[in-house]
Amino acid sequence: MSFSVQFLGTGAALPTIRRNPSAQYIECNNRHILIDCGEGTQTQLRKFQIKFQKIKIILISHLHGDHYYGLMGLLSTMSLLGRNQDIHLYAPPELKEIIDLQLKASGHHYDFPIHFYPLKEKEKVKIYEDKKIEIYAFPLNHRVATFGFVISEKEKDFRLKGEVFKMDQVSLQAIPFFRKGENFFDENKNQLIIAKKYILPPTSSKSYAYCSDNAVLESQIQYLKNVDCLYHESTFIEKHKERAEKTKHSTAKQAAYLSKQSKVKKLYLGHISSRYEGVEPFLNEAKEIFSNVCIAEDGMKITV
Amino acid sequence: MSFSVQFLGTGAALPTIRRNPSAQYIECNNRHILIDCGEGTQTQLRKFQIKFQKIKIILISHLHGDHYYGLMGLLSTMSLLGRNQDIHLYAPPELKEIIDLQLKASGHHYDFPIHFYPLKEKEKVKIYEDKKIEIYAFPLNHRVATFGFVISEKEKDFRLKGEVFKMDQVSLQAIPFFRKGENFFDENKNQLIIAKKYILPPTSSKSYAYCSDNAVLESQIQYLKNVDCLYHESTFIEKHKERAEKTKHSTAKQAAYLSKQSKVKKLYLGHISSRYEGVEPFLNEAKEIFSNVCIAEDGMKITV
Repeated sequence: MSFSVQFLGTGAALPTIRRNPSAQYIECNNRHILIDCGEGTQTQLRKFQIKFQKIKIILISHLHGDHYYGLMGLLSTMSLLGRNQDIHLYAPPELKEIIDLQLKASGHHYDFPIHFYPLKEKEKVKIYEDKKIEIYAFPLNHRVATFGFVISEKEKDFRLKGEVFKMDQVSLQAIPFFRKGENFFDENKNQLIIAKKYILPPTSSKSYAYCSDNAVLESQIQYLKNVDCLYHESTFIEKHKERAEKTKHSTAKQAAYLSKQSKVKKLYLGHISSRYEGVEPFLNEAKEIFSNVCIAEDGMKITV
Repeated sequence: MSFSVQFLGTGAALPTIRRNPSAQYIECNNRHILIDCGEGTQTQLRKFQIKFQKIKIILISHLHGDHYYGLMGLLSTMSLLGRNQDIHLYAPPELKEIIDLQLKASGHHYDFPIHFYPLKEKEKVKIYEDKKIEIYAFPLNHRVATFGFVISEKEKDFRLKGEVFKMDQVSLQAIPFFRKGENFFDENKNQLIIAKKYILPPTSSKSYAYCSDNAVLESQIQYLKNVDCLYHESTFIEKHKERAEKTKHSTAKQAAYLSKQSKVKKLYLGHISSRYEGVEPFLNEAKEIFSNVCIAEDGMKITV
């Protein structure tokens, strides 16, 4: 029941030695997801020893180069290493033609299918679901069509009180019922076994949200309500608020405001402009409004 | 009168921590040239502290991703840093549409003109010329249309014997004549000044050739005749000769053979497949045929 995020690139449009362009790797209940894929992402994946052939879902927030120029290289490497497992790619519609054109020019093809899902959401919409997780996309406020994502664990099973269960010699057939919190009728014993004695409530389901790039809007609060962990861009600090407005980015303070209003539990700030030497001003500014905040760094791995 | 090459990426299709995909930076008589631009090239340029805004000419050998996936990122960074100077881009024709499509999707534009020259050469053809240098393109033998390049210094000026010139108090007006090896008629003195006493022969003009990716052909010898320095791919060693043939690449031995036949002075081997741990087998194989050979490494800077 693991849920972790590893930041691969926390820089803005101009990559630096310290901060790669945007990318992050999410492992949620054994689902392996890549969000954004800036130039050099495959090298970051190698550097942090992530088994990138496990990635099955790729989410691209928007088509500014610092969020996807590493995608063709990663797909090519996956192919060269013999991948045959499907990739599910969620991205703005134009990306399909961009990939196809480059593939055609190279004379290459991939031996694995890429299922392409064009993102056009105007509201928060579920774009993926399986037994364990759900992924939602919602519109962000940037210069081109841009999408935020929420990855949520589904409601989990009740937990078994193993020892009591064994002691009472309850039939193993009861387990799937108990996991759902339901009583079990034991036909051999002709007896209804009440679940309550044998179960503990499920651990809480967690959710993670990604917002980059984005100029904060009040209307976005609803998309992030009660998210456990939010990565939000803060390309600028308040000193450069006008620049943030003009380029449709956020300041650290604005990201903190959104987090507070959405009752997010923890905020990570990223997409830091290369113009800043240190991150203290980001932290200080954000903490005035929202205390549980951290600066994301390349390579940092967090548990949601 | 400098002429240097710095290897930025000497790996093959699968980048490794040690070898980036193909790219190199050439400085020739104050002309700044980039050949190929694999993913991560802009990071390499920064790492090796190269002033990349000086680059005016970009040559892309072919449209396999490991030779150009870093181009969009580099152009974007050049633009973000305020470039307004022209770029002259020589590449297979399809690259224009690939760039235009990605620019359109991003909603961006560059504030500098890109002059695009589609490469279609079937023979060795001069594609660029100015007062000091010439660049030639010629076809290589690979799976898609691929081009090699020769960068040559033009014939240089005669050198002045400064002391004799001063001692004899020759008019400064003689200098441009002497530089061309011509005599000068001094009208004030009504006297023909014979150049020979005051000049030394020009230093020899150098040339550098780039061949990647390429399966060696006899017909290529003519393209490389007497080149001073050749960078040639050797993705494989003879042990994997069949793989080389199938993928239209070369072995170290084949690159050495081409160098010997072309009377190249010095050979650098690159585009080394990530399957090999060490480079000794490449060197040993090549040296059996051509002694003046080196393995190119990322960051290595050579004088032509």
